[in-house]
Amino acid sequence: MNRIAIFPGSFDPFTRGHEDIVNRTLNIVDIVIVAMGHNPEKNTRYFEADYMLERIRSVYTGNDRVEVIEYNELTASLAEKYKAQYLVRGLRNTTDFEYENSISQLNRYLNKDLETIFLITSPELAPISSSIIREVHKYGGEVMDFLPYEL
Amino acid sequence: MNRIAIFPGSFDPFTRGHEDIVNRTLNIVDIVIVAMGHNPEKNTRYFEADYMLERIRSVYTGNDRVEVIEYNELTASLAEKYKAQYLVRGLRNTTDFEYENSISQLNRYLNKDLETIFLITSPELAPISSSIIREVHKYGGEVMDFLPYEL
Amino acid sequence: MNRIAIFPGSFDPFTRGHEDIVNRTLNIVDIVIVAMGHNPEKNTRYFEADYMLERIRSVYTGNDRVEVIEYNELTASLAEKYKAQYLVRGLRNTTDFEYENSISQLNRYLNKDLETIFLITSPELAPISSSIIREVHKYGGEVMDFLPYEL
Amino acid sequence: MNRIAIFPGSFDPFTRGHEDIVNRTLNIVDIVIVAMGHNPEKNTRYFEADYMLERIRSVYTGNDRVEVIEYNELTASLAEKYKAQYLVRGLRNTTDFEYENSISQLNRYLNKDLETIFLITSPELAPISSSIIREVHKYGGEVMDFLPYEL
Amino acid sequence: MNRIAIFPGSFDPFTRGHEDIVNRTLNIVDIVIVAMGHNPEKNTRYFEADYMLERIRSVYTGNDRVEVIEYNELTASLAEKYKAQYLVRGLRNTTDFEYENSISQLNRYLNKDLETIFLITSPELAPISSSIIREVHKYGGEVMDFLPYEL
Amino acid sequence: MNRIAIFPGSFDPFTRGHEDIVNRTLNIVDIVIVAMGHNPEKNTRYFEADYMLERIRSVYTGNDRVEVIEYNELTASLAEKYKAQYLVRGLRNTTDFEYENSISQLNRYLNKDLETIFLITSPELAPISSSIIREVHKYGGEVMDFLPYEL
Repeated sequence: MNRIAIFPGSFDPFTRGHEDIVNRTLNIVDIVIVAMGHNPEKNTRYFEADYMLERIRSVYTGNDRVEVIEYNELTASLAEKYKAQYLVRGLRNTTDFEYENSISQLNRYLNKDLETIFLITSPELAPISSSIIREVHKYGGEVMDFLPYEL
Repeated sequence: MNRIAIFPGSFDPFTRGHEDIVNRTLNIVDIVIVAMGHNPEKNTRYFEADYMLERIRSVYTGNDRVEVIEYNELTASLAEKYKAQYLVRGLRNTTDFEYENSISQLNRYLNKDLETIFLITSPELAPISSSIIREVHKYGGEVMDFLPYEL
Repeated sequence: MNRIAIFPGSFDPFTRGHEDIVNRTLNIVDIVIVAMGHNPEKNTRYFEADYMLERIRSVYTGNDRVEVIEYNELTASLAEKYKAQYLVRGLRNTTDFEYENSISQLNRYLNKDLETIFLITSPELAPISSSIIREVHKYGGEVMDFLPYEL
Repeated sequence: MNRIAIFPGSFDPFTRGHEDIVNRTLNIVDIVIVAMGHNPEKNTRYFEADYMLERIRSVYTGNDRVEVIEYNELTASLAEKYKAQYLVRGLRNTTDFEYENSISQLNRYLNKDLETIFLITSPELAPISSSIIREVHKYGGEVMDFLPYEL
Repeated sequence: MNRIAIFPGSFDPFTRGHEDIVNRTLNIVDIVIVAMGHNPEKNTRYFEADYMLERIRSVYTGNDRVEVIEYNELTASLAEKYKAQYLVRGLRNTTDFEYENSISQLNRYLNKDLETIFLITSPELAPISSSIIREVHKYGGEVMDFLPYEL
Repeated sequence: MNRIAIFPGSFDPFTRGHEDIVNRTLNIVDIVIVAMGHNPEKNTRYFEADYMLERIRSVYTGNDRVEVIEYNELTASLAEKYKAQYLVRGLRNTTDFEYENSISQLNRYLNKDLETIFLITSPELAPISSSIIREVHKYGGEVMDFLPYEL
C-alpha cells in the first residue's frame, strides 16, 4: 500500500519554501499530492488558480510521485477520497505553529486515522511567505528567486 | 529498506505524551528507536537511568517494531550508527517549537540526510511534561495517570 | 452587592469552549453576562445574530445567574452600564494572550475599576475556535460535538 | 463562606509587580494568601526565606484580608488545607503563559475544584522580574523602586 | 554624509507609540523620514490620508530632522530614492517580532545595504495600537491621550 | 563625538551569528565594544574566559573600530564608563525577544540615555546558538563552520 501525503495550501503563489517541503516529504512517503485549495465562488486570489496550477505542475513534470490538484472541500474529506494517510505542513515560526496546531486537531477529529506530519521550513527559506511575494510583485519588484518556476 | 526513526529524549520520566508520539510514529515508519539520552558522569536524573530504561521497555514488550536504548553522543551520530533516516519529536507549544527548530537545523547540518518529523502532542496530553511529573512525585502526589507503566 | 462579570465575544458561533469559560466564571462571581458584540450595519457574521442569541439563551434557560445580551458599543461602557466589575476572557494560546493583553490595558484605561479575569481554556477544548467551526460547517462537516446546543 | 485565593511564588524577592497582583486580587476575592514556596533542604535563594517573609508581611501589616505564609508542598494540597477555591497568577508575557498553562492544568487535575485566575501584569511593571532585581542587586545597583518595602 | 532612517507605517492613526520611536531614532541617526504608506486606489483607511499626513507634520513643525511623506511603492525602493541607509521599526510583542522578521529579510534581499533597526516600544505605550485607537474612536471613546496631536 | 555601541554577551563561544551583529552594527555607529561578561568567582564557562577573549580579539585585529573587553558589572554601568550611547543585541526568535525586552527596559531605567538597538539575526545564522555549539563540541563534533576563528 502506498504511503500518501497531502500537502494542502492556497499556494498564491507556490514558493521555493513549498518546494522544499515537497522534496523532503518525498523522503518520508511514496506519493505527495500538492492540493491547492480554491473556492471558485470567491475571487480573492492574486495569481489566478488555473495559471498557478499549471505553474506548479511544470515543476513536477515527469515526477510520477507528485500529483498537483485543486480542491474545494474539507482537507479531511479530501484525504479520505485520495486514501491519504498523512497531511504534511511546513512550520516557519511560532505563529504558524499555533494555527497549525488547531487545524491538525480538527483534522484528527474529522478523520481519526489522519496524521499531520510537520517539517520545519529551512531557515534560509523561512522568511519568504506567499504574502510577501505578492506584495513585492504588486509593486513590480523581482520575485524570481523565490519561485521554483518562471512567471 | 526499513524506515527507521529515532525518538530521542531524556525521558525523566517517559510519559503517556511520549507513548502517544511513539504510537503515532509507528503509523509513519517501520521501526521506532526510543533513545534515552544519559550522561553517566553527571548525576542529574530524578529517576535512575537503568530503572527508567527497564520501565520503558516494559511498555513495548513483544513489540518488535520498537527498540529502547540508552545513548551518550550526538543524536546525529546515533542516527548514522542505527541507519535511521528520521528523528521524531513532539511539539507541545511555542516554547518547544523554538528549541526544536534550532536542534533540527543542527542535525541536518551534521547529517544532511537526517530529517526531523514533528508531531503535535495530543492536546489532552500536552500539559503533562516530565518536569511537572517530577515535581508532583517529589511531594508524594499521585502520578500514575500520566505514565504508561507502574512505578 | 452582586459580583458581575461580562463575557464579551462575537460568538459566531458560541462554542463548548465558551460554555466552559461561563461555567468556571460562575464559580468566581455571582452573575455572568454573555455579551455578543454585533454591529448591525456590518453584515459579516456567518451565523445570524438573532439566531445565535437565541441559541445561547437556550443553553442557560432557567439559570438566573447567566444573562445573554447583544451589544454594539465599547466593552468598557457596557460594563459601566451593567455595573459589572469584571470582564472575563478565555486564553487558548500565546496569540490570544498578546491580543487580550492590549485589550485589557485599554479597558482599564477607559474604566479604571474594570478588572479582566483570564481563565485558560481547558486543553481538550482549546483547539476548537469559532473560525474553525465556521470552516467545517461551510463544507457540510459535522460540528455538533463542538456546540452546547443544536443548530 | 469566604472566597480565598492563594498567590504562590518564590518571591525572591517579592516585587511591586507581585504587590499589584495582590491588590487587584483583593477586588475579586475576600482573602489572599501570599504563599512563598521554599524548600529548606535546598539553599538556592538569593534573599533569605525568613527575611523575605518578614519583609512581605511588613507590606500587609494591619490588612486582615492578606495572610503571608511559607510552604513546602504541592500548591494543590496547600489550597485544600486552606480551603482556598482559587489560585491567582500574574502573566507578564507569552513565556509566562505557556508555563502557567501547564501548571494550571496540573492543579485542576490534582484538585478539580481549584480554579486558577490569571491577571495580566500592569505593563509598566511587567519588565521587572525577580531575577532581574537579583542581578541588579548583586552588582550593587539600586532596586528600591521595584520593591514595595525597604531592604 | 547624513545618516537617514525611514520609519514606514500606515499610521492610521500615528500614535504616541510611533512618536516615541521617532524621538528615540533621532538619537541614533541624523534624519528620520516618517513614511506613511497609502494606496490611493484602495479606500481602506479609517483616518483620511491627507488629514493624517497634515496631523503628523504638525507634530514635527520646526524640526528639520524629521520629514513626513506619503508613499505607494516598495519600502526598499523608497529607501533607495531617499538614500536612506536604515529602516526603523518598533517592536511591541512577539507577534510584531515574527512579522517584522520576515519583512526585514525581504528588505535586505531587495536592497542589501538596507539595515532595519528595531527599538522595543516603551512598555507603558506598547498596548496602544492604531487598531485599538480606531475601535475606541469609532464608538465615540476618548483617544486624545494616545495621540501626540489634536484630532 | 563618537557614536559608541556596547555588544554585551557571555560569548561562550563567540559565533558567526555574533560576528554578523558586530559587522552590521559598524554600519550604524562608529565604535563597537564587544563586552564579554564574566564573573571570575563562578566557574561556569565551557570555553575559558581568557582564551575566548583572545580568540575574539583575533577576529578584529587591525580593526580600530572594534574593541574587545571583559566585564563583571551591570551593563548600564559599563556603558556609562565607556560613554556608550547604545547597547546592541541580536534577536533570533520570540524567546530572545521576551528576554531582551525585560533587560532593555531595565537598562533604560538604570541609565535613561542608554538606547538598545536590536538587529534581527540573519536567518541562515539564527539556529546556531552558543549552547548548541557547546553541545556539539562536547561530543567531539565539528564546529568550525559556526565560528569566525580557529579553536
